[in-house]
Amino acid sequence: MTEPALPDVSGLVVGVLGGTGDQGRGLAFRLAQAGQQVVIGSRTAERAAAAAAEIGFGVRGADNAECARQSDLVIVAVPWDGHAATLSGLREELAGKIVVDCVNPLGFDKQGAYALKPEEGSAAQQAAALLPDSRVTAAFHHLSAVLLQDASIDRIDTDVLVLGEDRAATDLVQALADRIPGMRGIFAGRLRNAHQVESLVANLISVNRRYKAHAGLRITDV
Amino acid sequence: MTEPALPDVSGLVVGVLGGTGDQGRGLAFRLAQAGQQVVIGSRTAERAAAAAAEIGFGVRGADNAECARQSDLVIVAVPWDGHAATLSGLREELAGKIVVDCVNPLGFDKQGAYALKPEEGSAAQQAAALLPDSRVTAAFHHLSAVLLQDASIDRIDTDVLVLGEDRAATDLVQALADRIPGMRGIFAGRLRNAHQVESLVANLISVNRRYKAHAGLRITDV
Repeated sequence: MTEPALPDVSGLVVGVLGGTGDQGRGLAFRLAQAGQQVVIGSRTAERAAAAAAEIGFGVRGADNAECARQSDLVIVAVPWDGHAATLSGLREELAGKIVVDCVNPLGFDKQGAYALKPEEGSAAQQAAALLPDSRVTAAFHHLSAVLLQDASIDRIDTDVLVLGEDRAATDLVQALADRIPGMRGIFAGRLRNAHQVESLVANLISVNRRYKAHAGLRITDV
Repeated sequence: MTEPALPDVSGLVVGVLGGTGDQGRGLAFRLAQAGQQVVIGSRTAERAAAAAAEIGFGVRGADNAECARQSDLVIVAVPWDGHAATLSGLREELAGKIVVDCVNPLGFDKQGAYALKPEEGSAAQQAAALLPDSRVTAAFHHLSAVLLQDASIDRIDTDVLVLGEDRAATDLVQALADRIPGMRGIFAGRLRNAHQVESLVANLISVNRRYKAHAGLRITDV
């Protein structure tokens, strides 16, 4: 890699909205295990606190608004269905913060998964539209929630594609991905190119079915 | 991988429509070098013959229609601009054949590349709509034309995502990708999920700019 060194993010408090879901819980576990301070957010503080206690590693729980207030960087891991409603209620709490959208808008039918196209272009662009005072990025789309949550697995063998307009913000998100053993944050373009990154999860689901795998991505030659 | 063995494709004649462009020329070179019979197609037989002679390895040249007629499997590597016109003129020649679309519909501006959304959903779905009598698949989207054409490079370190409805056809295309050292064909879903695979090239272009790389993809855990 020809990039300069990424910033030190070890002191950042990371919030995970939707932290009681599989993806959010898995990310919270991996980041806390790596030494990050993590606050799980959920609709109710009780559910968040219960999930946090299960994870351990000092993870705290709070309702979504309090989670956003307490965090420097907030990962959005809510279901696509609740994406717009959750974010539009947190505009003030998320102002000035780095928001990392990892939501994959997908539909499912008998033939498997397929991409949904949000009106704004992608989940990340919807977040940017709803949160004009935040520094919105997109990342962590292609992680297997199964592998993330399996404490017997030491390394998560995948690259994390990081998108955004703001170099300082994407650098921080790359550095955060780098904290998890096996993961590597790779800058992969602006938010206008987030849709294909989000919806590639539909293809990984097809890969997983065919090969009985928990597929991830690596970028070669970087 | 849990898949059964893929078919032997060493006897197939492979056509490359748009074989005088960088991507087509690179693929023709790699496949011919691997021992495949290859016919390059172009709008004029003369240009095709000149490109074929440059490549060597027994590659032949022909106009697009003759290329399609002579081939068992036809890779579509024309520019997106000429995609619909080229294919609609070859419906008869391509009937019954395996068509492998590797076209990436992209726009470019000062900020780089971005995805174009074909009316049919993707270039591959446009091909399927225009070629109802062919077995249309999509593959070979993420290859660096620079690396493909560089004869000093022995291995192309990338997976090839193969999409399609017809298992026998996608198996053949995977086997064809496997012929090129370093490449591996991976089934990655149906054609309705081709758009994100095609447009992910916009992200790889961003990666290449940032890291001064020729990025490719690997699927992990497969």
